[in-house]
Amino acid sequence: MTSPAGAFAWLPYLPMDIPRGGSASEIAGSELRAGFQALGIAEEPRIRPEGSSESYELVRKDGVITVRGGRQGVLYGAYRLLALLACGRSLPEGVQKPFYPLRMLNHWDNMDGGVERGYAGHSLFFRNNRVFFDPLRIHRYARMLSSVGINAVSLNNVNVIPPMDLLVTGEALAEASKIADILRLYGIRMLLTVDFSLPVRMGLATADPLNAEVIRFWADRAEEVCKVIPDLVGFLVKADSEHRPGPFTYGRSHDEGANMLARALKPYGGMLFWRCFVYNCRQDWRDSTTDRPRAAYDHYAPLDGRFDENVVLQIKNGPLDFQVREPVSPLLLSMPHTRKALELQLAQEYTGQQIDLFYLAGQWQDVFEVMSPEKVSCISAVSNLGSSPNWTGHDLAQANLYAYGRTAWTGRSDPRAYAEEWAEQTFPSAAGKITKLLLASPGVYEKYAAPLGLGFMVNPSNHYGPSPDGYEYARWGTYHRADRDAVGVDRGKSGTGFTAQYSADLAEIYGDPKRCPDKLLLFFHRLKYGHVMADGRTLLQRIYDDHFEGAEEAESLREQWRALHGLVPEDVYDRVLARFDMQVSNAKEWRDVINSFFFRFSGVPDEKGRKIWN
Amino acid sequence: MTSPAGAFAWLPYLPMDIPRGGSASEIAGSELRAGFQALGIAEEPRIRPEGSSESYELVRKDGVITVRGGRQGVLYGAYRLLALLACGRSLPEGVQKPFYPLRMLNHWDNMDGGVERGYAGHSLFFRNNRVFFDPLRIHRYARMLSSVGINAVSLNNVNVIPPMDLLVTGEALAEASKIADILRLYGIRMLLTVDFSLPVRMGLATADPLNAEVIRFWADRAEEVCKVIPDLVGFLVKADSEHRPGPFTYGRSHDEGANMLARALKPYGGMLFWRCFVYNCRQDWRDSTTDRPRAAYDHYAPLDGRFDENVVLQIKNGPLDFQVREPVSPLLLSMPHTRKALELQLAQEYTGQQIDLFYLAGQWQDVFEVMSPEKVSCISAVSNLGSSPNWTGHDLAQANLYAYGRTAWTGRSDPRAYAEEWAEQTFPSAAGKITKLLLASPGVYEKYAAPLGLGFMVNPSNHYGPSPDGYEYARWGTYHRADRDAVGVDRGKSGTGFTAQYSADLAEIYGDPKRCPDKLLLFFHRLKYGHVMADGRTLLQRIYDDHFEGAEEAESLREQWRALHGLVPEDVYDRVLARFDMQVSNAKEWRDVINSFFFRFSGVPDEKGRKIWN
Repeated sequence: MTSPAGAFAWLPYLPMDIPRGGSASEIAGSELRAGFQALGIAEEPRIRPEGSSESYELVRKDGVITVRGGRQGVLYGAYRLLALLACGRSLPEGVQKPFYPLRMLNHWDNMDGGVERGYAGHSLFFRNNRVFFDPLRIHRYARMLSSVGINAVSLNNVNVIPPMDLLVTGEALAEASKIADILRLYGIRMLLTVDFSLPVRMGLATADPLNAEVIRFWADRAEEVCKVIPDLVGFLVKADSEHRPGPFTYGRSHDEGANMLARALKPYGGMLFWRCFVYNCRQDWRDSTTDRPRAAYDHYAPLDGRFDENVVLQIKNGPLDFQVREPVSPLLLSMPHTRKALELQLAQEYTGQQIDLFYLAGQWQDVFEVMSPEKVSCISAVSNLGSSPNWTGHDLAQANLYAYGRTAWTGRSDPRAYAEEWAEQTFPSAAGKITKLLLASPGVYEKYAAPLGLGFMVNPSNHYGPSPDGYEYARWGTYHRADRDAVGVDRGKSGTGFTAQYSADLAEIYGDPKRCPDKLLLFFHRLKYGHVMADGRTLLQRIYDDHFEGAEEAESLREQWRALHGLVPEDVYDRVLARFDMQVSNAKEWRDVINSFFFRFSGVPDEKGRKIWN
Repeated sequence: MTSPAGAFAWLPYLPMDIPRGGSASEIAGSELRAGFQALGIAEEPRIRPEGSSESYELVRKDGVITVRGGRQGVLYGAYRLLALLACGRSLPEGVQKPFYPLRMLNHWDNMDGGVERGYAGHSLFFRNNRVFFDPLRIHRYARMLSSVGINAVSLNNVNVIPPMDLLVTGEALAEASKIADILRLYGIRMLLTVDFSLPVRMGLATADPLNAEVIRFWADRAEEVCKVIPDLVGFLVKADSEHRPGPFTYGRSHDEGANMLARALKPYGGMLFWRCFVYNCRQDWRDSTTDRPRAAYDHYAPLDGRFDENVVLQIKNGPLDFQVREPVSPLLLSMPHTRKALELQLAQEYTGQQIDLFYLAGQWQDVFEVMSPEKVSCISAVSNLGSSPNWTGHDLAQANLYAYGRTAWTGRSDPRAYAEEWAEQTFPSAAGKITKLLLASPGVYEKYAAPLGLGFMVNPSNHYGPSPDGYEYARWGTYHRADRDAVGVDRGKSGTGFTAQYSADLAEIYGDPKRCPDKLLLFFHRLKYGHVMADGRTLLQRIYDDHFEGAEEAESLREQWRALHGLVPEDVYDRVLARFDMQVSNAKEWRDVINSFFFRFSGVPDEKGRKIWN
């Protein structure tokens, strides 16, 4: 077994060479040959490309396997075949086709080489305010994505920081197109994030979406970009969000803004992805009527049916912001006459920052339990990748990218299956135990970090580690309002009314502290510390218990990892152990700070007499 | 009256030209001539320099004024004469001589042009990682300092960030010496801050102060620097403090470290200023025995008598860190066999950041009430100056520099006298009212910001605005440990024992909540919210009252400023009004956050029924 360092880890049997070929089907052949050789399979791979679809079929006849499918489909089929063979799984019957036609990855990379909320080194694509073109790395990157079916990427941050905004023109665009040329070989198309105020930055007096010059400006931009990158998926825009400019700046509505950009892209078959992360980021903490989780629905639901066909509203999984535990965003469940994309976050901004282990697939499973996958037409995720040799900083965080690709392809999340597949391919001698670690990880983190769906008790700005009052008097609309008696915000009928954004059934469940799932209890309710939960414990004791258990379980994760010494490559072992050491320390800090915080308020000691620092 | 914008404001009658002359006494003549002309005095200034002292005498005989004194003294005399004439004051009798022989200003400027804790633009001395040499600006700066008697400056940050550490050699040193050449004309000598680990950065294997190569290294540095700047005061060092390297890094004591550097400087008459801001900045908040205010005394008091004669321990006014309200550092009151310097902070890091008005002279008066001025042999202050046209950002913050110069010269702080002098020279039509504003300002700020000496309830990192728990679970040793019943840290006999660092009398007063001054009550004591104060109010009600009053009084300051419209230059009026607008908003935020914070803990409403947000 080779170390995944520097390699595409879940395909360690693939050689490092750039696959040969000028098309997906040629690359499929090259990859299969190399893969068969690595797996000790003597037969010559058979590939039968036909048509242009992404679907494929793996046919075994007389002991010989053939990959049939569209020109792109055979590449997906080849990668899938290798994965299944490596895991010793049986081949699926019938035609395999992706659930979502667009399976996107959004990088938040800046032109200076930094990555917003990046925890795995520098940008893969930018450095020193220029495009950084490293063909070998891009090939590896594209292969990694294609092997799990991702077919669209945006390279640049949704917060478009100059000079990144100029990526849509001139030399920077030409450089970016070289990356697109490689991605294209793997069936991956590019999106560009654009700044709504770009017209102003490029010399116009306004960026008003109804202004004729602005309309022409964007038409010119779309033409220029699509001339260079003809298969561009489209633009991705964060507008009127967290100080970004947008239609509101010019007294226009979001459908006016989005449709204008969509019409510029339409002649080239382009789409316009419009993020719905719009809320008042200058809220006054004294204002208890404004409720940030309401914001996206309040802004967009009234606009249903007013967006052009090639506009897609891109909506985060939860109504707040990628917290450990949130309910599904009610906006995802509404707007039947609007195309929507689900946005997930692989970058572990609030989930351990690729220091603490947090396998995300369970979070997505929770989403699909409430939201049937057809509610959205596309899926997207914020990337967890960077220049680190192992791509994700924490080696085990690769499993999140793998699981995301599978989720996007199948339209469902099966945390155990994806973890097993990834682990069996990547660390075959330790697959079972690593799967166990992955599956346990989100529950452990949740116990010590976020009490019962409360969220945002993190250190401001960097979002790692506890600061229970860190956002309490801030402008971000994220308040828990803990006092000596109670904690949480009532988001039901008698409170902010947020629950009314859900169907009557869900509103009923979420709005009733007896029926609301424990894990979301403090997301939806303000409760006294003495509130008795379903299992008989008080709310406060449950918080204490969770935090003591979470810190213990973090130590247990580390012990489980230690037991893998010799079963995974030494460098991986050392790197991951170092991360677990940090996680154990972080978990203790969370435990002690959160428990002290509530003890100082409540004055009630732990029932079991465990140490709470006062 | 001219606007002070771009000018040396408290001498608005001085023209902008660089004073003529190659020596202090020649400049004295040039300044006096220009000043007399501006004041409408027809006579020819008479200057009688003799000897080299800083003293002077203003002699009026037969209606003619003569400035007599040392070559430098006549310049001080000239500036003082102009100030007194401008204010219409009588001339002092007898020889005037400075109380402290060294009256220093420490800039915390970085080579990239930034200023640590700077609130008035960029560095005056550095830009783009080079010395920035602007002769006209340096002349103005030197004149401004000299006019109030400051005679020594360090230009570079005590946190010596590379490439600033190389200021002691080569081209950067040559450039810095050009600044020294101008300062010298005004009797101002230069210090350089140095990094204790510089030997390592310049190629040695160690910076161990007992290592022969290290000793030679520093001897060479001192020689090189003093060859170029022969009147160098010496080096200023922040060692073993907030992650800076120091003797502890090499298992050596601070006297060993300081004496080594002092001996390198000795052949050139140089002095070594060694900051005593040493504490554990990686404290665990769970640790309630370590008490940061103890740190400086605990570290240094045992070393009394072990420092060379040309070592000066530079000690902050309080034992914590430039908070709004602190007791005098007990270290200043001890170490009789050691030369000490008092360090003040003009940069308003914790006192409103030159947005909120805070006239500091009262704070220094409090210091001198406890510490007789002879306890220290020098005085120093962290600069509040930057590239802003008005030097200090807030126009009225100039008064702090003025008052500091006068304090350093006289060895006493007279807040009213210095405020009057400054205001009469700078804004003659509004002097009385501006004096009133200045004198009221610290009390107003203290009321809304720091409850009864508690401190560090500020936003982490930037230190502006409230964040009552911002440092509570951090590593900086600054805890208030508020809970539902009580707040504060017991620093008396039954607590951390900090009071024992004072004389028995003071320890008795500070240690007794009945005798401890109200303003320091929560610095020294942990008290229940219901604790009844001398005036009959509960501690909690006093906190509420202070915060409501503070916010109201901030509005009153703004109203008082508004009444000055037309009496001060329009641009000054607008700038200061804009700052007062920000201050009013900041004061409200402090009021509401601090009151809510304590209300959430205590559950006790305001007796007077005023609004506290829950």
